[in-house]
Amino acid sequence: MVETNAGAFLLPGPVNMHPRVLQAMSAPAMNHRGPEFKEILSEIHGLTQYLFGTRGPVAVLSGSGTAGLEAAVSGLLRKQDRVLNLVNGKFSERFHELCQVFTTPTALSFEWGTAVDSGKVAAALDSGDFHAVTLCWNETSTGLTNPIAEIAKVVKDHDAFLIVDGITAVGGLENRMEAWGIDALVTGSQKCLAAPPGLSAVALSKAAYESLHADTSFYTNLKAHADALAKQDTPFTPAVPLFLAFREALRMLKEEGLDNRIARTRRLAEAARAGFDALDLRLFPDRRFASNTVTAVRYPTGLDDAAFRKELREKRGTVVAGGQGPLKGHIFRIGHMGICSFEDLEAGFQAFETTLARMGHITVR
Amino acid sequence: MVETNAGAFLLPGPVNMHPRVLQAMSAPAMNHRGPEFKEILSEIHGLTQYLFGTRGPVAVLSGSGTAGLEAAVSGLLRKQDRVLNLVNGKFSERFHELCQVFTTPTALSFEWGTAVDSGKVAAALDSGDFHAVTLCWNETSTGLTNPIAEIAKVVKDHDAFLIVDGITAVGGLENRMEAWGIDALVTGSQKCLAAPPGLSAVALSKAAYESLHADTSFYTNLKAHADALAKQDTPFTPAVPLFLAFREALRMLKEEGLDNRIARTRRLAEAARAGFDALDLRLFPDRRFASNTVTAVRYPTGLDDAAFRKELREKRGTVVAGGQGPLKGHIFRIGHMGICSFEDLEAGFQAFETTLARMGHITVR
Repeated sequence: MVETNAGAFLLPGPVNMHPRVLQAMSAPAMNHRGPEFKEILSEIHGLTQYLFGTRGPVAVLSGSGTAGLEAAVSGLLRKQDRVLNLVNGKFSERFHELCQVFTTPTALSFEWGTAVDSGKVAAALDSGDFHAVTLCWNETSTGLTNPIAEIAKVVKDHDAFLIVDGITAVGGLENRMEAWGIDALVTGSQKCLAAPPGLSAVALSKAAYESLHADTSFYTNLKAHADALAKQDTPFTPAVPLFLAFREALRMLKEEGLDNRIARTRRLAEAARAGFDALDLRLFPDRRFASNTVTAVRYPTGLDDAAFRKELREKRGTVVAGGQGPLKGHIFRIGHMGICSFEDLEAGFQAFETTLARMGHITVR
Repeated sequence: MVETNAGAFLLPGPVNMHPRVLQAMSAPAMNHRGPEFKEILSEIHGLTQYLFGTRGPVAVLSGSGTAGLEAAVSGLLRKQDRVLNLVNGKFSERFHELCQVFTTPTALSFEWGTAVDSGKVAAALDSGDFHAVTLCWNETSTGLTNPIAEIAKVVKDHDAFLIVDGITAVGGLENRMEAWGIDALVTGSQKCLAAPPGLSAVALSKAAYESLHADTSFYTNLKAHADALAKQDTPFTPAVPLFLAFREALRMLKEEGLDNRIARTRRLAEAARAGFDALDLRLFPDRRFASNTVTAVRYPTGLDDAAFRKELREKRGTVVAGGQGPLKGHIFRIGHMGICSFEDLEAGFQAFETTLARMGHITVR
């Protein structure tokens, strides 16, 4: 079906995996309670702390990013705890839904594509006794990065826990979790780390770790997972192949250097934004807060989402994501995190340009 | 470290995986919301129904067997519901712990290594208003299969839900879930199916499906998972490589034929029991209820568990499991499920015999 091999896999997750990572995953069965797996967990423990930039407790769960968010919320909070959910996109909206199951949440909403306003957060915290605040650091659905440092300062000033969805941020955006005062920071394996989907990781502040309880969850019991990893163990059978791939991806991150990866991701984002400017496509989010890991662009009037993405996929071997919720049909999104290269991005833009031209939306220059 | 390649990997899970399964797992990244993955989920839906022997609703979760158990318990029951937990080993004990988080459970305990007595179950159900009963069908920790058909009859007579941990049973033991009246049957990918660890599957009766609610869990929300699979979707990002491996393992099960696999597993178990008899080692469980998927044997007096398993592993390339909880040091356990062959078993027994002789516990004949 694909006419060319020059395409690019540019989803905002799962992202391209390196052959080293794929190969690590296909090892034969292993005793997950034996000495070999203990060594693997020990290495993962250290490398995950490196990824998060912390020396504090971390947990790795066999479950997607949502499992990590559930672990953080259900482990730190109780049903009666009041929580302020900062909502400005699909993923922060889901974070709010999750909090409805485990806590007593209030949503503070902002227009999709605009950033969370820390002044409004301060006002909301002044008006009520909130135990915690949740923030989706990088809103994958709108391609927007919220100003986490200033939001964190407001939350700390109000002495609440800050629980952060960093699923498409950690490993791709500058992260100072300890300096800023993040209490729980969650990521997923299939984003900036470029490992397969299926694992999530949670890093905790000392205060958060000391507040963990086990009243409202079992499989995602965060204390059990954090304590087990510190002893090179897991509370339940781990998804062994994913741990092997995760370790290899973490090794590759460390070989590149976290700061180098973040800088490369920023340069890729700048190139992507320049590319869309050149194609006369408009960014969806407020440009001042455009994400460095995910770029979301508006479709020109009359360009059909399904037809565009089908043509891209089938004729150009290029995979991008559409919009979600109210943005479905109005935007498309590309990821440029993980091991994404300038060549991948260039191949993607060649496909975009050709496809836009074939569909009559630009004149080939 | 291993002096011989003739060893065997005989854990009671994770079990050996076929090269086809390993290869399927190492495919490049894929759009989990695209048409290709929808086809994969459609095939998995049908093959999972085949595995369970049902035409009813099934769910596949990105999480270990414990995630599947949590999905069943938290989806079907509520905090105030009274539940009778049948406990006769480590895994039924953990099932009871899980129920403490989501329901109001009572344990009905039997000595480890003896079967659940359906007469006592009837008496317990007569004495209280129980909404559900949990059973660990095959107690992996003691190598014992509970008499599920007669227990199910008692539970049905009392009009309670029957929630079954079939993690080391489904695909290895004769299963008539609809005829017996099982309401929720849970399995794990890394046992009789011989896929990698990290996925669980849950099959539901019609009545159970209609009782599902979403009040006490989010990541393991069973209704969300079952409804999504019926529409070739998943509620959260799936562990894509594990789904690819799971599909391949299910295809291999269907190629062999479910009945053939169950019959082969029984013959392997008979061979294992005969082998231990020949080595003068005593089975741990009540022989009438000895499992066909896992065999647990007592150590002869004076044989050290750690030394035996280390020698087996390092000198004979053979991996078996020790005991758990109060059985630690007293028994070891082997699995003979999934794609385990008579050659695997023979290699294992050669390693057992040599190691027992080297450690002075038998005379080589």
